[in-house]
Amino acid sequence: MTIENLSSNKSFDGWHKQYSHHSDTLGCAMRFAIYLPPQASASQRVPVLYWLSGLTCTDENFMQKAGAQRVAAQLGMAIVAPDTSPRGDAVADDDGYDLGQGAGFYVNATREPWKRHYRMYDYVLDELPTLVESNFPVSDRRAIAGHSMGGHGSLVLALRNPDRYTSVSAFSPIANPSNCPWGRKALTAYLGGDAARWADYDASLLMCRAQDGVPALVDQGDADEFVAEQLKPETLEAAAAASGYPLQLHRRDGYDHSYFFVASFIEQHLRFHARHLGL
Amino acid sequence: MTIENLSSNKSFDGWHKQYSHHSDTLGCAMRFAIYLPPQASASQRVPVLYWLSGLTCTDENFMQKAGAQRVAAQLGMAIVAPDTSPRGDAVADDDGYDLGQGAGFYVNATREPWKRHYRMYDYVLDELPTLVESNFPVSDRRAIAGHSMGGHGSLVLALRNPDRYTSVSAFSPIANPSNCPWGRKALTAYLGGDAARWADYDASLLMCRAQDGVPALVDQGDADEFVAEQLKPETLEAAAAASGYPLQLHRRDGYDHSYFFVASFIEQHLRFHARHLGL
Repeated sequence: MTIENLSSNKSFDGWHKQYSHHSDTLGCAMRFAIYLPPQASASQRVPVLYWLSGLTCTDENFMQKAGAQRVAAQLGMAIVAPDTSPRGDAVADDDGYDLGQGAGFYVNATREPWKRHYRMYDYVLDELPTLVESNFPVSDRRAIAGHSMGGHGSLVLALRNPDRYTSVSAFSPIANPSNCPWGRKALTAYLGGDAARWADYDASLLMCRAQDGVPALVDQGDADEFVAEQLKPETLEAAAAASGYPLQLHRRDGYDHSYFFVASFIEQHLRFHARHLGL
Repeated sequence: MTIENLSSNKSFDGWHKQYSHHSDTLGCAMRFAIYLPPQASASQRVPVLYWLSGLTCTDENFMQKAGAQRVAAQLGMAIVAPDTSPRGDAVADDDGYDLGQGAGFYVNATREPWKRHYRMYDYVLDELPTLVESNFPVSDRRAIAGHSMGGHGSLVLALRNPDRYTSVSAFSPIANPSNCPWGRKALTAYLGGDAARWADYDASLLMCRAQDGVPALVDQGDADEFVAEQLKPETLEAAAAASGYPLQLHRRDGYDHSYFFVASFIEQHLRFHARHLGL
């Protein structure tokens, strides 16, 4: 697997870098960003936090707006931010911002015209870590986090693969996609109309039947314009209560859905993951 | 003077807000952003750092990318970020990114077609602080900082008005605009071809003849692609040496011209200003 360096910026004594590579899983060229803290070297491989972004985002939103590099540099943690869907002229798309390119929802699609390229679940779970761990001075200790659609993705990936991540966190996740307009639209398109096929991509349903799992941290602003109709944190809380899942969910007075909210609490998320990553 | 609130985002327990207002100085509608730290209240007016952005920027770049709110919230410092030029269909413009809208260079233009609207020097020095101090719980203690074209602007404003600011700082400033392509193009257009008229807008020439002045802090990345041709920190250093000006200029190994650089050192700038603002 060859990767092409697109940009490099020194940041808090480490490096923010963007790369392009051909993804076999997705069948297209993909871009991702990595932050390598100053501690990372051939003799000191550092753990990785995977960050999954929300609707319309690319690898850039989190890296430019969250202010995470300062804390990652202190902790000695790498951060990898993939794009939010397959991309390119040959990749199916939709006019809506909430379906198609920029809206992969971290699923493996089974329906036309999506199933050829839309396999973000496998890409984030397998291909991307393999690529990252073979090209950078990072270890195979992984945590995962995300925002909104990416919070949904991080929770689903960690709930289904507790052996692959030490911990999971989310800001403003789409916590019950089977039961909100964004989720129903995307899951119907990518997986078909049988809601039984959506359960493996619904964090609340997964958490409700989790036998055990890695620690989860969720932050949700109570002034978030999407909280009632689209995000439904109360369903995730009820699921955790039902199964005894180790979930901490904080409601934050006055905060909205923006990266101003993410930036305000990202340090707490990174320190949560650092504890579980053994940093 | 009436101002219209365009957006509000809670950020580090304070508020990021955008406003629009009619500028009498510029003869057009203008947008600015303000960060109000949690300490700001009718009974506790806080000092203000004015941040001037670089070419192509608006009020948003710094507020979204620099990560300054965290430290401003700790210190109890407001930050105000104006746009970088007058705006609108009725405002003269140029096809280049380095002249016209998005490139006001913080001067008062004297030439056609610019002189009607391009008076960013007066706007930042007078109209904007008057507006801010009459509408928000801030004091009349002010510091000023900026990046690239905005670093030029912050140095020029502070060097010419040491009674108005406690301190000045800059990242990667255009330190000698009389003597670089960006500066010569803009100053010729806005002020005419007589270089003698440019001296009042050239930080190095102003610092060279400064009798006294407020403390200045400059950071410059040595991997900045613009440093040799456009920025010329060595000229500013020589000017400070000649006049004995209180300038600290740090060259930072490996850092470029981006906001990844600004974010890496913004805390040091805010703490520098806080000391001089009496926080």
